[in-house]
Amino acid sequence: MGDNIRIGIMGWGNLGKGTKEAIEKTPDMQLVSVFTRRDPQQVGSNFPQVNFLPANKAEEYVDSIDVMILCGGSATDLPEQTPYYSKLFNTVDSYDTHAKIPEHFKSVDKAAQENGKTAAISIGWDPGLFSLNRMIAEAILPEGNEYTFWGKGVSQGHSDAVRRVDGVKNGLQYTIPKEEVMERVRKGEDPSLSAKERHLRECYIVAEEGADKKQIEEEIKNMPHYFDEYETKVFFITEEELAQNHAGIPHGGFVIRSGKTGPEASTNQIMEFGLKLDSNPEFTASALVAYARAVHRLNKEGQTGAKTIFDIPPVYLSTRTPFNMRKEML
Amino acid sequence: MGDNIRIGIMGWGNLGKGTKEAIEKTPDMQLVSVFTRRDPQQVGSNFPQVNFLPANKAEEYVDSIDVMILCGGSATDLPEQTPYYSKLFNTVDSYDTHAKIPEHFKSVDKAAQENGKTAAISIGWDPGLFSLNRMIAEAILPEGNEYTFWGKGVSQGHSDAVRRVDGVKNGLQYTIPKEEVMERVRKGEDPSLSAKERHLRECYIVAEEGADKKQIEEEIKNMPHYFDEYETKVFFITEEELAQNHAGIPHGGFVIRSGKTGPEASTNQIMEFGLKLDSNPEFTASALVAYARAVHRLNKEGQTGAKTIFDIPPVYLSTRTPFNMRKEML
Repeated sequence: MGDNIRIGIMGWGNLGKGTKEAIEKTPDMQLVSVFTRRDPQQVGSNFPQVNFLPANKAEEYVDSIDVMILCGGSATDLPEQTPYYSKLFNTVDSYDTHAKIPEHFKSVDKAAQENGKTAAISIGWDPGLFSLNRMIAEAILPEGNEYTFWGKGVSQGHSDAVRRVDGVKNGLQYTIPKEEVMERVRKGEDPSLSAKERHLRECYIVAEEGADKKQIEEEIKNMPHYFDEYETKVFFITEEELAQNHAGIPHGGFVIRSGKTGPEASTNQIMEFGLKLDSNPEFTASALVAYARAVHRLNKEGQTGAKTIFDIPPVYLSTRTPFNMRKEML
Repeated sequence: MGDNIRIGIMGWGNLGKGTKEAIEKTPDMQLVSVFTRRDPQQVGSNFPQVNFLPANKAEEYVDSIDVMILCGGSATDLPEQTPYYSKLFNTVDSYDTHAKIPEHFKSVDKAAQENGKTAAISIGWDPGLFSLNRMIAEAILPEGNEYTFWGKGVSQGHSDAVRRVDGVKNGLQYTIPKEEVMERVRKGEDPSLSAKERHLRECYIVAEEGADKKQIEEEIKNMPHYFDEYETKVFFITEEELAQNHAGIPHGGFVIRSGKTGPEASTNQIMEFGLKLDSNPEFTASALVAYARAVHRLNKEGQTGAKTIFDIPPVYLSTRTPFNMRKEML
């Protein structure tokens, strides 16, 4: 297995764990080590076959890791970590703060270029595969409208918000695309609707004993920015129901391009890409691992610097040879 | 407009006409000439603003056309035309005889390489975008099953077959994916079903006066290879109904990857790409035009030879700058 791509994982949350699983499903990669800022012994106690090391030991592995997959969060970890580790390793991250991507790209590109490394940023599904589909669909059908629907899925920020309401013991929030709006889009009706009009929000709340449920519901529904402009439903459930029916981290959504072609632009052409994920972090991790393969190959070819999902030739993602791919998959 | 990409169209069927329309929807391309094997004057009489020329004049345009879009058929035109014109021009074709793609690639690659040209083959949706989605989905979710459903759409081969039946004056055939099978796939059930079990066939038939409709229906339903193993429905309609309700060339379909992730491969992850096209040739033409842009750019960078949809970095398809794309679309 000497030719395997040697992978490091930086960060051991849900994304890091999913990355370990995804690596094990490939025939051409091996996990060299997981790096964590917590106590490696404690963190790794349930995974005796994995080599856990403190994050500050990563520098010692520059010659034995081909790609470092960065599994930290976008708020504070990745803006620091990706530029730093892209000086030492080829990297992949899932940086998802859309508004700050150009800034992140710039700092990562500089670090990677100066050190002959290749870094794929903002890999996952949005940003990621959704972006890719939006872009390709627009390029093919320049006349038209694009719609992104998110969900059904758990929104972390909105779940945090409902848990801060007085009298709420626990709870979470699902973002749900409105099926009737999606059907109108799929028919080529091109409705002009904001994100607020395309989605509804469902909250599953465990109330504290004796709490005023009507009051909780009112407070959630009127919460500025988070809920007040949305159609919001609030359901009260028990702690047991929450644990039993809402333990997963599902997500997904749809990117639909409603394009027009022909002499009068009168022909409807609908392109749709959708994901239904029972585990958001496990899927994102699987994308990171496929793009780690691409990053390794690009770097071997001398293509250095920061790359996004737009830049990377799809052929680099697969374990198939180009010949086999043309024969079997085209 | 001196920097526009200068396009030639070879062949003036539905695909050639769609290509002209698609070029007109771009801000960065201009149609230099349409080449046809028929009488240019007659063929072009309804399009006074387009320059029609005989096919054998194409050689004179090597310096004034950046990309020649080849709009001939896969059976006899493209196996000859693509290698031939790839010696003279950068080209794009929609070669769709899946079994012979490796052979076609080889002959086109040789012609293009030897002459410093770039040629994108088998562009469209299947082969094309469907292939791309199959490949990316497999790379991200290596453990899983892939399902391609075609339709609802008109199948040319099957329509020809029903029209050859005794007593049939006119008619056509739609291939239709079975909705209940798609739902099972979307739920992650991974049914093991052949193409015959995933699709049904609907025939709309105009019978000749006095023809035995029962006999026609029997003959169609029992036609070997074409219909006998499929669930087939036969509807008799009038010539007027055929003209009114079945004049379009719709098609489309779905590529679904049902993948598994996680420690026990117990997490369902569904990726789906779908097209609902009111005009199959206009959509395919729109894809050819976007890939013509990519071919032009690749050639300018010195990336010559035959390319498939797998090889081409998506960024080359769009009129947006890479910076704008990262800012607005990622």
